[in-house]
Amino acid sequence: MRRKSRKRAQRNPDTISRLGWRRIVNPYPPLDILSADQIEAIHLASLDVLRDAGVKFFSSRARNIFQSIGAEVDHAEQMVRFDPALVTNTIKTIPSRFQVNARNSERSVEFGGPNINFATVGGPSFVSDLDRGRRAGTLTDLKDFFKLVHQLEIFHSGGASPFEPLELPAESRHLDKYLAAITHHDRLWMANMIGAYRARDALEMLTIVHGMTREQLTEKPVTTGNININSPRQVDEAMSDAMIEFAYWGQPVLVTPFTLLGAMAPTTMAGALVQQNAEALACMVLIQAVRPRSPLIYGSFSSNVDMKTGSPAFGTPEYVRTTLASAQLARRYSVPFRSSGPNASNAPDEQATYETCMSIWAAVMAHTNLLLHGGGWLEGGLVASFEKLIIDAEILQMMALSLEPITVNRETLAVDAIADVPPGGHFFGSAHTMERYEDIFYTPLLSDWRNFETWQDDGAVVASQRANKVWKSLLKEYTPPPIDQGIVENLNEFVRRRKQEIERGHVDAILRVSR
Amino acid sequence: MRRKSRKRAQRNPDTISRLGWRRIVNPYPPLDILSADQIEAIHLASLDVLRDAGVKFFSSRARNIFQSIGAEVDHAEQMVRFDPALVTNTIKTIPSRFQVNARNSERSVEFGGPNINFATVGGPSFVSDLDRGRRAGTLTDLKDFFKLVHQLEIFHSGGASPFEPLELPAESRHLDKYLAAITHHDRLWMANMIGAYRARDALEMLTIVHGMTREQLTEKPVTTGNININSPRQVDEAMSDAMIEFAYWGQPVLVTPFTLLGAMAPTTMAGALVQQNAEALACMVLIQAVRPRSPLIYGSFSSNVDMKTGSPAFGTPEYVRTTLASAQLARRYSVPFRSSGPNASNAPDEQATYETCMSIWAAVMAHTNLLLHGGGWLEGGLVASFEKLIIDAEILQMMALSLEPITVNRETLAVDAIADVPPGGHFFGSAHTMERYEDIFYTPLLSDWRNFETWQDDGAVVASQRANKVWKSLLKEYTPPPIDQGIVENLNEFVRRRKQEIERGHVDAILRVSR
Repeated sequence: MRRKSRKRAQRNPDTISRLGWRRIVNPYPPLDILSADQIEAIHLASLDVLRDAGVKFFSSRARNIFQSIGAEVDHAEQMVRFDPALVTNTIKTIPSRFQVNARNSERSVEFGGPNINFATVGGPSFVSDLDRGRRAGTLTDLKDFFKLVHQLEIFHSGGASPFEPLELPAESRHLDKYLAAITHHDRLWMANMIGAYRARDALEMLTIVHGMTREQLTEKPVTTGNININSPRQVDEAMSDAMIEFAYWGQPVLVTPFTLLGAMAPTTMAGALVQQNAEALACMVLIQAVRPRSPLIYGSFSSNVDMKTGSPAFGTPEYVRTTLASAQLARRYSVPFRSSGPNASNAPDEQATYETCMSIWAAVMAHTNLLLHGGGWLEGGLVASFEKLIIDAEILQMMALSLEPITVNRETLAVDAIADVPPGGHFFGSAHTMERYEDIFYTPLLSDWRNFETWQDDGAVVASQRANKVWKSLLKEYTPPPIDQGIVENLNEFVRRRKQEIERGHVDAILRVSR
Repeated sequence: MRRKSRKRAQRNPDTISRLGWRRIVNPYPPLDILSADQIEAIHLASLDVLRDAGVKFFSSRARNIFQSIGAEVDHAEQMVRFDPALVTNTIKTIPSRFQVNARNSERSVEFGGPNINFATVGGPSFVSDLDRGRRAGTLTDLKDFFKLVHQLEIFHSGGASPFEPLELPAESRHLDKYLAAITHHDRLWMANMIGAYRARDALEMLTIVHGMTREQLTEKPVTTGNININSPRQVDEAMSDAMIEFAYWGQPVLVTPFTLLGAMAPTTMAGALVQQNAEALACMVLIQAVRPRSPLIYGSFSSNVDMKTGSPAFGTPEYVRTTLASAQLARRYSVPFRSSGPNASNAPDEQATYETCMSIWAAVMAHTNLLLHGGGWLEGGLVASFEKLIIDAEILQMMALSLEPITVNRETLAVDAIADVPPGGHFFGSAHTMERYEDIFYTPLLSDWRNFETWQDDGAVVASQRANKVWKSLLKEYTPPPIDQGIVENLNEFVRRRKQEIERGHVDAILRVSR
């Protein structure tokens, strides 16, 4: 499964060296920080929460589905409560592994087990770079961001819309985002899960891309979509309905409670995990109730707030531990796992870097199957930064290669080569070196390893400023991925028609097609 | 063993919050990236290297010791070769765990097993900060650095002389460094291992500090010292003789081959590990030949060079993997392990941060007993940076707390507290939160979690610039650790006498005392 195609480091310093596409597998056991007994205690406590306190679902569709499988539903209070056995029996059908198919089949990825996939940021309204500062996102910026995603093959997914093109109408701009993603990069991308119609529009466009009927979707996942639970214990209508739509068509939903310790969840890590788990289980039940065996991913977004100010914090020791423990809960249910690469910094600086590094090593040690927000996230998720995208790509490239095994055999042990170099000599010119030197070590995307004097004479440019040059060079080198022009025409026609419907108020017209 | 005394976060923003002193234990299994068979293949190959190629020792004292235990010594070529059984039998007496005693016994630390200890940088000639730039080290700067070490309780050791006070005479400035370390912080510090006399001066001063006879040293380690092998396969006279001196007095030596892949070692990671292991084993044999059961630490400093320029690189995927594999080799021999927290950046920037983060997570996953160069290292080790010291302290504090267990019990599971907060409500004012909120989360040393607008209005200060303010505030808050004035007088008298001896050319006079 693992494929190597690292791009050759060029002598020309203006050519940016990048790691080639690869599927990443963590060959080592996950880092389990809780005992089996502790995991069971959290599991059982979350079943208590589901039985006694319950979860509020604003969506009548969701409540009706819950009622149909025997959950206790109070429509007046919009509350749903669950018998423990109903929960444990219903979630048994969740697949432990599945593939999601990209339009370029070489970019399809697998979720579950030790597979690690990296995705860029999703959700911000703002975009920033060091030249133009922090500003509202636009479609032009978004296309540039997608071009960089295409260039940076360490990313397995273009994320959940890196930022909003705010100049476009809110009701229909998801169509412009989808079209830009499809035509500017060849990686997976994630649907917008605010309302069933936006989820369904993504699926319709992907049937065009893949040349499938919509009925074939249920056998072939082609995208993912993230829903956030509005913790504590509350799921809004737009998210529920998008989740139901995805489940109906067999597309994987990332079920992610938003449990900031001290604000939307208890201050204790165990308590936050109980609440997160209860909220996730409720949605997992819903998805399986809609379509047994529909794929899904257990998501964690448990971090803490600063108790003095209420500000959210990320990459903290609390974040690291809830991520590792959450992955164990997902494994308890044999369900793929999602975490993130966030930070709370306001600039692509040293804080942004170390908080992200903490988030990423926790994710990789946890066997995170989908690292969302792994490229470009700043300001607790309010901003997508072009420079941070480059810094993150470097970190992720290094992390990916750190998981590669060391080859131990007669040639690599090099006993004769060691004997051939005299004490105090060097290996630069040895035959063993000459046979291997070209591609043997990691070639960085961003790091500058020149000595101080050379670096100073060249302007003393620090890494965040170099990242600015790197993304501009990558944009210049960009060529779009090939795509059948007939497909593009059909997509354009679909978008044009849907925008008309939406403009006329027939937002949900798409939902009445073939269902 | 584990002690908690986290300093209370203060409301006054000018007071710097720091994590209190603690012994750090990694409660999880080490990350083993090689199989037992692969470790055995590296072990056996390194024995082949020791038998056939051998190691060059410039020191006749060292060669005579090797000869006395039956190694094959060629005095003309200065080469020493080893029968495999001689190696494996001689190293059996190395202790797997030992304590090193600080003058404040609460700051004593344990090496071996899952104990993790953090030390600051050692070795640079230059010092830098954002106000005064990069410059030659001075004793005044060194004292400031030691004051910060005392303030930052995350560091278990003040390192191996963070940088050289270059204005002082090279032959005697180790005395000034030792005295400054003893009087400015209460943590361990490491002796200068260039020549037996510098090593011995450290021990003499520590007998004064601890009120011990020099004979009692062999029962009570009070310091450590690092020796580097001048790879490939060469140990200089000054390092050997310091190593022998430490072994004679039962003080732990860090045995660290300097095996940069592609320059001083083969390009293959397996080959570099073979060479590192052979070099380390030769010195481990020497130490045990001098005094069986003398403590020592297996050190790794295997990274790669940039094959295009020859520049050393750190924190790379190669560095991560050789660190993890080297720790396995140390465990193969039941010997404590040392690695580092280096980077190759020229500024305390994002590159310095992510390369250091990669080094540190590898170290912690490897069960590194002593992380040398864990605070302040820049420029591949040429510079000690005040700002980087603060950035590193923040990373290490976060890493230490990430290893704390999650408490799972009825109170922390918080089922009732979860039920008490209505759907969509918040936990800020809940009784469960109010009982716990003050100290429950990590309070950062450096991170700024305020929102963008507040941060911008306050000057948009990025983390490296904030680090500049933090170290200056910590210096202002500094009060020296208590020390008996009689001890200080005796130390001053010793330093005065030794400086006279050294000035008169009687550098080695100290070695003739009681031996």
